[in-house]
Amino acid sequence: MNKNGRLFVISAPSGAGKTTLCEQLIKRVPGVVQSVSVTTREKRPGEKEGKDYFFVSAGVFKNRLKNNEFIEYAKVFDNYYGTPRKFVESNLNKNKDVVLTIDVQGAMQIRKNLKKGCVFIFILPPSFKHLRARLQKRKTDSNMQINQRLRAAKKELTFLKYYDYEVINDDMKTAFKQLMAIVIASRCKRY
Amino acid sequence: MNKNGRLFVISAPSGAGKTTLCEQLIKRVPGVVQSVSVTTREKRPGEKEGKDYFFVSAGVFKNRLKNNEFIEYAKVFDNYYGTPRKFVESNLNKNKDVVLTIDVQGAMQIRKNLKKGCVFIFILPPSFKHLRARLQKRKTDSNMQINQRLRAAKKELTFLKYYDYEVINDDMKTAFKQLMAIVIASRCKRY
Repeated sequence: MNKNGRLFVISAPSGAGKTTLCEQLIKRVPGVVQSVSVTTREKRPGEKEGKDYFFVSAGVFKNRLKNNEFIEYAKVFDNYYGTPRKFVESNLNKNKDVVLTIDVQGAMQIRKNLKKGCVFIFILPPSFKHLRARLQKRKTDSNMQINQRLRAAKKELTFLKYYDYEVINDDMKTAFKQLMAIVIASRCKRY
Repeated sequence: MNKNGRLFVISAPSGAGKTTLCEQLIKRVPGVVQSVSVTTREKRPGEKEGKDYFFVSAGVFKNRLKNNEFIEYAKVFDNYYGTPRKFVESNLNKNKDVVLTIDVQGAMQIRKNLKKGCVFIFILPPSFKHLRARLQKRKTDSNMQINQRLRAAKKELTFLKYYDYEVINDDMKTAFKQLMAIVIASRCKRY
């Protein structure tokens, strides 16, 4: 068995429920930590620095990018997102499993650069109708933004084929059990 | 996702606890059935026809083998063991997951012939010392038979590299959780 931790790369369209599912995972499965991304996008109401994201200016982001401080980065809706290399690598070396919730562009970079010891999981809404309803309920986006997110979701879904696992988040409890099973099973996986 | 069930091929040295673990799996995870092997070996005290094995004569076994009625068969300690093709295939077609507890020879035949949709799991005792203690506690084997089983276990372990997962059965509860996680995760696996 691998002595290092594993990297769980989790992607999902906005509104598919990945944030809640991953929070549960960190809380309930020992030995799993979540990587917090660095972003240039504006803080949403309720979001916390260092918990949801590290919020930085575009200038700071580009400097860190130049210094190779991200294991992946992506530009989504005019904002940059990056995963800090140091946090991920030091936790994997300590035999911790690291969860990254990142978009498909970032996941494809990880797939290309680090594939060994990585597990790719896609969380899906049961349907686009459900997804629209969830985004409307969240009340953080305008109708225009919701339409934009749904178009993005359709595009993201074309990348599903590059992922190892798919979890359909219809019932949150079932989806959580599946996500937890993927983490526990991956620890028994031989390489 | 695959619409057919999956075949879980589980191997373990005698005394590693595979029978108890698999019984729990069938009882507690819906949609999983166990394939019952056909064997020419003698019934042990407490074993039941059609539950533990289908007990047949060497003549009957060889006839069925000739008719291609087994998806794998093996000769272990002078006895034949075979997996009935019809049971396995009809359950997989009904979207059931089928558990086979078979020895490494049989597992290698499945790996060669049917690899797609198969998950290979090896259950290990925490050590050979533990394994000897468990076999002694079982009181079904003589000392000579126990030594023979331990030599066989060492040989079987050289096949570990052909399995997808390893579950170390130190604590039965933890081992069961891992086995269940492998089944649930495999259902989310994309092919």
